[in-house]
Amino acid sequence: MSDSRPIALDAMGGDHAPHEIVAGAVHAVRERGLHVVLVGSPRVLYEALADHDATKEIPIVRAEEALAMDEGALASLRRPRSSLAVACHLVRRGDAGAVVSAGSTAAIVATGRLRLKGQQGVLKPAIAVALPTLPHPTLLLDAGANAEAKPEMLVQFAHLGAAYAELAHGVEQPRVGLLTIGSEAEKGNKLVKRAHELLQGSPGIHFTGNVEGYDLLTGQADVITTDGFTGNVALKTMEGAVRYAFTELQESIGDSRLARLGAAMQRSRLRELRRRLDAEAYGGAVLLGLNGTVVIAHGSSRAQGISAACRLADDLSSSGIVTDVGERIAATHRSHRLW
Amino acid sequence: MSDSRPIALDAMGGDHAPHEIVAGAVHAVRERGLHVVLVGSPRVLYEALADHDATKEIPIVRAEEALAMDEGALASLRRPRSSLAVACHLVRRGDAGAVVSAGSTAAIVATGRLRLKGQQGVLKPAIAVALPTLPHPTLLLDAGANAEAKPEMLVQFAHLGAAYAELAHGVEQPRVGLLTIGSEAEKGNKLVKRAHELLQGSPGIHFTGNVEGYDLLTGQADVITTDGFTGNVALKTMEGAVRYAFTELQESIGDSRLARLGAAMQRSRLRELRRRLDAEAYGGAVLLGLNGTVVIAHGSSRAQGISAACRLADDLSSSGIVTDVGERIAATHRSHRLW
Repeated sequence: MSDSRPIALDAMGGDHAPHEIVAGAVHAVRERGLHVVLVGSPRVLYEALADHDATKEIPIVRAEEALAMDEGALASLRRPRSSLAVACHLVRRGDAGAVVSAGSTAAIVATGRLRLKGQQGVLKPAIAVALPTLPHPTLLLDAGANAEAKPEMLVQFAHLGAAYAELAHGVEQPRVGLLTIGSEAEKGNKLVKRAHELLQGSPGIHFTGNVEGYDLLTGQADVITTDGFTGNVALKTMEGAVRYAFTELQESIGDSRLARLGAAMQRSRLRELRRRLDAEAYGGAVLLGLNGTVVIAHGSSRAQGISAACRLADDLSSSGIVTDVGERIAATHRSHRLW
Repeated sequence: MSDSRPIALDAMGGDHAPHEIVAGAVHAVRERGLHVVLVGSPRVLYEALADHDATKEIPIVRAEEALAMDEGALASLRRPRSSLAVACHLVRRGDAGAVVSAGSTAAIVATGRLRLKGQQGVLKPAIAVALPTLPHPTLLLDAGANAEAKPEMLVQFAHLGAAYAELAHGVEQPRVGLLTIGSEAEKGNKLVKRAHELLQGSPGIHFTGNVEGYDLLTGQADVITTDGFTGNVALKTMEGAVRYAFTELQESIGDSRLARLGAAMQRSRLRELRRRLDAEAYGGAVLLGLNGTVVIAHGSSRAQGISAACRLADDLSSSGIVTDVGERIAATHRSHRLW
């Protein structure tokens, strides 16, 4: 069920822009049946589309400026006509359903907040990342949009994540866990202890208690709420540890001829697993809480990753996640007024 | 070079106390040539030593009470005669060089602080954990002694870790990294930004800048300083991710007969690697900043883990880490007075 509105794809953001972004758009349109508009330099994009014989399939929206990968939040303020800003503008005007960009995360967060604005009642937007648990991903948020947080924000992040889990993963009553340093209610810093109290009394949230770093990949929660500092450290630690385990394993294998023989046999299995652990296959992170869906693809995304990000963006916007989040937050405010 | 004073080993703490603790003591004495005294119930310990024909090799110091593994900080205040409290007392009196316990971390931190007291000038003790990088471990601290931290504490943790790295791992001028969410100086929360400024001007610290979660296992810093909340989340996330990667790998292997054959060939390699990643082999975490060395062995430690913890405790106390930390902290205070 695809939204009739297209995905606005920032064609100039990402390590492999614009060619892999354009190739991703072509894949999304031809293989997944999605509607996509490319935002960026028309001349460059027309040529790239011509390589795929796709100039008639995918429209281009002009944006002559682009944000470099090393530009941060400030650049987005100085560049109201960047490809990213224009993509956001399309969503703001209702001409596109969602934004996808593989640009720098800091620039996407800043541009998204500036151009799309936070939803009414939402204190701060948050980045949700899907961790590769089974049968469905565990959502970790905030994964880095806000380095500082208030306890009330952690409750809102739980709502944002619950909406995502319900609409994108079909989870009924998502189990929400609070990331801290022990399972007992009193474990943690001041922020987390107060958030624990607030979560326990929150209507519309199925709070199942504290979770620890161990639990990120055990699937015992559908949504894990945390501040953006802790969430970002945890996410990068997890990625680093998985990479480390694989590298060590490969080196161990390399040490022995017999083992190498065995390794050759299972190389394809290993590749398969690695792909599953690879964030790119999930289509990236989502910036939630704005008046429009923004999917942040990995900076290193190639065509497949971009196409998966477009799929995710379309799923979320077609399912009406912005409306759903709005209703959840409004309900929280109503229930507060009753007290 | 062993200290003449024995290690005071809490024989009643740990999931496998007292039998595996006693077996660990026997191993430490016979295989490593260490001096150990066992602290706990004399009757129980005498019997356990008799099983090893070791009643004449290892002295027992009486403590009739013990802290259960699920008892936290408060219990340690109520039990001045617990095996852990008595072990600390032996160090306080100068009758032992260091304490080793596999009891609950919260109880060890609380008892250590109460019985051994913080070193002069040390704001808070910290837990240092050795991560399995090569050629020598990277030390992460604070791994959980303090859920809240001030920027000045992060500077002190850097000194504690640098002393440990120099004395136990022979690292000259240990490279100190600050755990945060980006490599630029301005990345992070308020705590980290202020700590960054302080670390840059700190005499006696070779500050090499920010590190991220990815860097915990790359060996690019010898010491990583962070608050106990973030450090604990990162450590448990790392352990969970490594465990996850291995489990996934084993399941992937199990899926195919051909791959299984390959796996059998390299099973021993895998075991070897797993052992290296296993915290137990490193002898556990160290509580630094008190008037005495306290090694926190894993709660699930068996004899080998306890013996390794005794080795680490002896290395640290023989090398005079308490004196070294004292001199570092005193030097910091002197240099502050000059301004």
